[in-house]
Amino acid sequence: MGTKQGVLMLIVMKAHASEEQVERVCEKIEALGFRAHALPGAQRTAIGVTGNQGEVETGTFDEMEGVQEVIRVSKPYKLVSRDLKEEDTVVRFPGSDATFGGDEVAVIAGPCAIESREQAFAAAECVARAGARFFRGGAYKPRTSPYTFQGLAEEGLKILAEVRDRFGLLIVTEAIDNESLELVEKYADVIQIGARNMQNYSLLKRAGRAHKPVLLKRGMSATLEELLMAAEYIMSEGNYNVILCERGVRTFADHTRNTLDLSIVPAVQRLSHLPIIVDPSHGTGKRNKVTPLSRAAVAVGADGLIIEVHPDPDRALSDGTQSLFPQQFADLMVEVRQIAKVLGRSVAEPVANPIAHRGNVTAGSAAAR
Amino acid sequence: MGTKQGVLMLIVMKAHASEEQVERVCEKIEALGFRAHALPGAQRTAIGVTGNQGEVETGTFDEMEGVQEVIRVSKPYKLVSRDLKEEDTVVRFPGSDATFGGDEVAVIAGPCAIESREQAFAAAECVARAGARFFRGGAYKPRTSPYTFQGLAEEGLKILAEVRDRFGLLIVTEAIDNESLELVEKYADVIQIGARNMQNYSLLKRAGRAHKPVLLKRGMSATLEELLMAAEYIMSEGNYNVILCERGVRTFADHTRNTLDLSIVPAVQRLSHLPIIVDPSHGTGKRNKVTPLSRAAVAVGADGLIIEVHPDPDRALSDGTQSLFPQQFADLMVEVRQIAKVLGRSVAEPVANPIAHRGNVTAGSAAAR
Amino acid sequence: MGTKQGVLMLIVMKAHASEEQVERVCEKIEALGFRAHALPGAQRTAIGVTGNQGEVETGTFDEMEGVQEVIRVSKPYKLVSRDLKEEDTVVRFPGSDATFGGDEVAVIAGPCAIESREQAFAAAECVARAGARFFRGGAYKPRTSPYTFQGLAEEGLKILAEVRDRFGLLIVTEAIDNESLELVEKYADVIQIGARNMQNYSLLKRAGRAHKPVLLKRGMSATLEELLMAAEYIMSEGNYNVILCERGVRTFADHTRNTLDLSIVPAVQRLSHLPIIVDPSHGTGKRNKVTPLSRAAVAVGADGLIIEVHPDPDRALSDGTQSLFPQQFADLMVEVRQIAKVLGRSVAEPVANPIAHRGNVTAGSAAAR
Amino acid sequence: MGTKQGVLMLIVMKAHASEEQVERVCEKIEALGFRAHALPGAQRTAIGVTGNQGEVETGTFDEMEGVQEVIRVSKPYKLVSRDLKEEDTVVRFPGSDATFGGDEVAVIAGPCAIESREQAFAAAECVARAGARFFRGGAYKPRTSPYTFQGLAEEGLKILAEVRDRFGLLIVTEAIDNESLELVEKYADVIQIGARNMQNYSLLKRAGRAHKPVLLKRGMSATLEELLMAAEYIMSEGNYNVILCERGVRTFADHTRNTLDLSIVPAVQRLSHLPIIVDPSHGTGKRNKVTPLSRAAVAVGADGLIIEVHPDPDRALSDGTQSLFPQQFADLMVEVRQIAKVLGRSVAEPVANPIAHRGNVTAGSAAAR
Repeated sequence: MGTKQGVLMLIVMKAHASEEQVERVCEKIEALGFRAHALPGAQRTAIGVTGNQGEVETGTFDEMEGVQEVIRVSKPYKLVSRDLKEEDTVVRFPGSDATFGGDEVAVIAGPCAIESREQAFAAAECVARAGARFFRGGAYKPRTSPYTFQGLAEEGLKILAEVRDRFGLLIVTEAIDNESLELVEKYADVIQIGARNMQNYSLLKRAGRAHKPVLLKRGMSATLEELLMAAEYIMSEGNYNVILCERGVRTFADHTRNTLDLSIVPAVQRLSHLPIIVDPSHGTGKRNKVTPLSRAAVAVGADGLIIEVHPDPDRALSDGTQSLFPQQFADLMVEVRQIAKVLGRSVAEPVANPIAHRGNVTAGSAAAR
Repeated sequence: MGTKQGVLMLIVMKAHASEEQVERVCEKIEALGFRAHALPGAQRTAIGVTGNQGEVETGTFDEMEGVQEVIRVSKPYKLVSRDLKEEDTVVRFPGSDATFGGDEVAVIAGPCAIESREQAFAAAECVARAGARFFRGGAYKPRTSPYTFQGLAEEGLKILAEVRDRFGLLIVTEAIDNESLELVEKYADVIQIGARNMQNYSLLKRAGRAHKPVLLKRGMSATLEELLMAAEYIMSEGNYNVILCERGVRTFADHTRNTLDLSIVPAVQRLSHLPIIVDPSHGTGKRNKVTPLSRAAVAVGADGLIIEVHPDPDRALSDGTQSLFPQQFADLMVEVRQIAKVLGRSVAEPVANPIAHRGNVTAGSAAAR
Repeated sequence: MGTKQGVLMLIVMKAHASEEQVERVCEKIEALGFRAHALPGAQRTAIGVTGNQGEVETGTFDEMEGVQEVIRVSKPYKLVSRDLKEEDTVVRFPGSDATFGGDEVAVIAGPCAIESREQAFAAAECVARAGARFFRGGAYKPRTSPYTFQGLAEEGLKILAEVRDRFGLLIVTEAIDNESLELVEKYADVIQIGARNMQNYSLLKRAGRAHKPVLLKRGMSATLEELLMAAEYIMSEGNYNVILCERGVRTFADHTRNTLDLSIVPAVQRLSHLPIIVDPSHGTGKRNKVTPLSRAAVAVGADGLIIEVHPDPDRALSDGTQSLFPQQFADLMVEVRQIAKVLGRSVAEPVANPIAHRGNVTAGSAAAR
Repeated sequence: MGTKQGVLMLIVMKAHASEEQVERVCEKIEALGFRAHALPGAQRTAIGVTGNQGEVETGTFDEMEGVQEVIRVSKPYKLVSRDLKEEDTVVRFPGSDATFGGDEVAVIAGPCAIESREQAFAAAECVARAGARFFRGGAYKPRTSPYTFQGLAEEGLKILAEVRDRFGLLIVTEAIDNESLELVEKYADVIQIGARNMQNYSLLKRAGRAHKPVLLKRGMSATLEELLMAAEYIMSEGNYNVILCERGVRTFADHTRNTLDLSIVPAVQRLSHLPIIVDPSHGTGKRNKVTPLSRAAVAVGADGLIIEVHPDPDRALSDGTQSLFPQQFADLMVEVRQIAKVLGRSVAEPVANPIAHRGNVTAGSAAAR
């Protein structure tokens, strides 16, 4: 029977341990019925050992070649922790300069839902022009009412793939169950897990077996620890490319739809190596608050922004009142670019002709540094 | 393209409308591409019309035989509403006197998780003896950490089925995704959807297609409307046997794990015909608070209680500190039985020999009155 | 300079220590620049030592006659703690059988604000008839807007005193600053400190020097510890007749004005000897929720209720929508009387002719057992 | 008897109305038993009419000379509203360039409590050197426990006055009741009302009669409307120099002491002409979060910051863990200065020798533009 606490050991390899030595340690871990997570750092590789079938003898690995130290980790979050990996995780995309967690502040922008090819293309063109590298747009919408627009499903995903081909934007879109996740993995570049599903552990595990990075949104009343543990679920299955996202929490305050908790950004960065971005659109629910809170998010040190922009917000099928007009988004980009500079970071420059600009982005798999 | 608001019409049939007339109206609804939900009441049958493909002409049904009135419902919750069905829904179980929403206050009791046949039987015997008619116990546990005990899965469900056979207890257990729901539907009597999945709409829709009643727990920060809308998702797929459950919400207060919000019981009963029960175990997270809050829950008018009882709480694999000792549960039953009487309700009497007592309960499908 | 933590010693006297011995210990404490709080219990007297000017040597008192033990208390709340006084505090009133914390569940009822003699008398007659022993009614109203009715001030207090004389009801009314507290102390039987002033420490200290019991309402977002510490402020000044009151806390939930947190009742009773009552009127803000939550409050074990009743709620100058009609209150009393019996407690019986009934209640000082 | 809703009329004077005409309108208002609040704007003067003794006939003023329009205001907040005064209120100080609500972002810094002249001078020197224009430090501390350090009272105020004389810093310090307010008004430049007293209406009214600006902190669970209504209380008594302050609200989140709600800054600025500043020290309760949240506060558009700085945080008598070290504060000032520039604002430059620098600041009365 499983233990109550779970177990994690951290095997720190020597600075110059060979790949073979790392591999042999991993093999031994798996032979004992545990899972090995080798995360190479700038200086050294650390191997996380997870499992819920009892404990490993610490001594088992002490004498193996290349092993420097074996550490028992008592915090509930393990693979997400800076204990395992000191440097920031940088999520990269093959054939693209875009990253999460690098020097550049990532900007994801686009409509709440994909409504039509025409709408998607119009939105994509304006966000690409303003400098966004990522395009968002829901094909599967978790709506409070079963009687409202639920998204275009695979048809929407195909439109998103066209957006990537045409505008060179990387695609971020939400999966709401195992079936949609499979399709999202196929068509998109980043798999989004929404706030309502942050503790849908079955979905998190499936995302952990996907070969694309995962954007994990904080649940409406999730603590910092619960957010990190949700990321741990994904990582425990072998997918280490997780991007966290603050999107506002539920409080008594009624002047915004949610209360955007920017303090979680430095709090995450202290405890975890994972990048964290901010969603001021859902975080406030009001168009006129999006720009000031975007500035604040970059100023607090967020690794990115995800922003709703609609070519015609007043006719949006969902979330119209929080979507920016294209010009507002362009202005926002100018402001956050300047704020980013103060922190020694950058935001991608505007692109005069986005269609011609980036032809070679392909939906490949990403790899963390 | 779908409308933003969703549509619901309510077709109220005449008091003496024939079944055939009801059927003909339903056929017409479906022929128009909508879904018909015929909910018979004590006086008359009302038919809810749902769909998200535009609106029906009200006039379409006015002239049909047996139709008394056609009403447009503007509230976001429709099938759950008392507008559709004035009388309380009573969830019944074939071959059993147990109900949710009837005169008797339903009591579900048992351990947090099924750990072994021995543990399950020990728990079942003591809760049956004290008068519980329903047995709870998780086979699939949504745990915060991927490294802690996640439940015995189908093995646990089989033990639960044995508990029903042996002790005549109806089985309530949680499903966490579509796959586990299929198995829970097969083995158990009530399918539980946990708080973390209250807005997992994909799972709610699947539960709406199941042939067993669904116990839907309020999410950790769900408003009354969101709870009702989650129930609406289930009902919109045709499963009208939904039992709501208050299990505490997340607030700043730190003397209990959650803040049990008993005021939602009369609030739900005002708006909806669905039964609502209370979970004081998760609602407080502390053993010494379970009995006083159980009394309060029955006093406020709840239709049932769900309580964690473990034969040996100190060795429980999960939630030990909130599980009652068997004797505490027996005492609790004595107290709530007296409180129920003040409200003109009852709680099932203790059973001297539970094994012999109820032999004929079978895992059949339930039907709402 | 003061210490950061504060200091409390608890000097436990022997079972048969004489009053003189107690007095001598108290004198010694005061001579050292500390404050002595002698709280007699059923078995023995305990003397709390408070002060913020450094620490007393424990040894100082060990050798004194009648002293059994000297204990250092590390919890932040000291005089309110069961460590100091094991038995429940019962707040008594000279010339009356009414208590807080005794076997009888105390019921305070009346309008939100005193609007006129006529209104007060009408309300008083009906609540007295139904069995309430305490009359509430604001003379000083802390209103959100400076432009709304702020109460009749001393004129209102005089009407309240007339109510006591005429109907034999004990008067509970709110003080909002030092000046009004002085007047409330003069005219009323219980000084209420409202939720908004729970951390108005200047007012708490003044209430601690008053010679009437204090009803202290929990602040809108106060933790259990903060509530107990607010009571500690009052007690630290020498007034040990403090009654706590749960009145709902602020959360995201919007189906009631506040979220009534009944779990704090057993939580307080575990840690403190002070009585705690519940205010379901402010706790829910909705008339139709007051009766069910009153039943629940008595069932959870509350020592009393405070309920808004207005002879004509629709014309009330404040809080009309949460005030009960007289008949609703009479019905409520019948229900809570039955619930109280289940817990081995009572609620005062109805009174056919309240004017004749109790002539000898006077505004005297109260004394804790 | 008072009306329930309160009344406000807004009398808009013509662009070139003479002072005499304004005066005559005010006299008429007062003669009718109401209060006149003349707030001159850049274009025109608007006169607010408040009172709770019934309503004024709108027609009464229509015909008076200089009157352009008479408007009835239905919002609960009236004098604080942009309806009354379109331009931002700028709080000014005689003999100083410092402002709240002007182009410069105001910085208030200093220790939580004044502990000694030595500590105060050390703190003052370093914050002045880094560019702060205002010095904070509590002489009256509202502490959760009656047994902890409560401040040096008038002795502390005298030290603060010396700090002003020596370092040219304007003094901001808290009043906790009417008596301390009188002293604070005498010694300091800005009277602070703490979060716990935000709805201490008696104190707010007293502050409204003071001749110094008031810094009003948002209560721990105050809504935007409640914050504005608290400011309305102050203004309704004739003191129009109110500065609002966001200092974090109470939520379930536990990674910071409070949840800093930066979205209230643009929300206040939309509705009200009053300046609003941010307190990242109390807002997070953690030293390592103060700098990132200060950057965010300036980026979101706050009119100022209030920050705890202690010459030796580890020995502070209160709030040590959230106080910055002097060097951290100096670094913070460099960062926020750059962020302010992006928004077209400024932060005062560092001062090499603060003692010599500003000799001529005196504790005079402030005047709003």
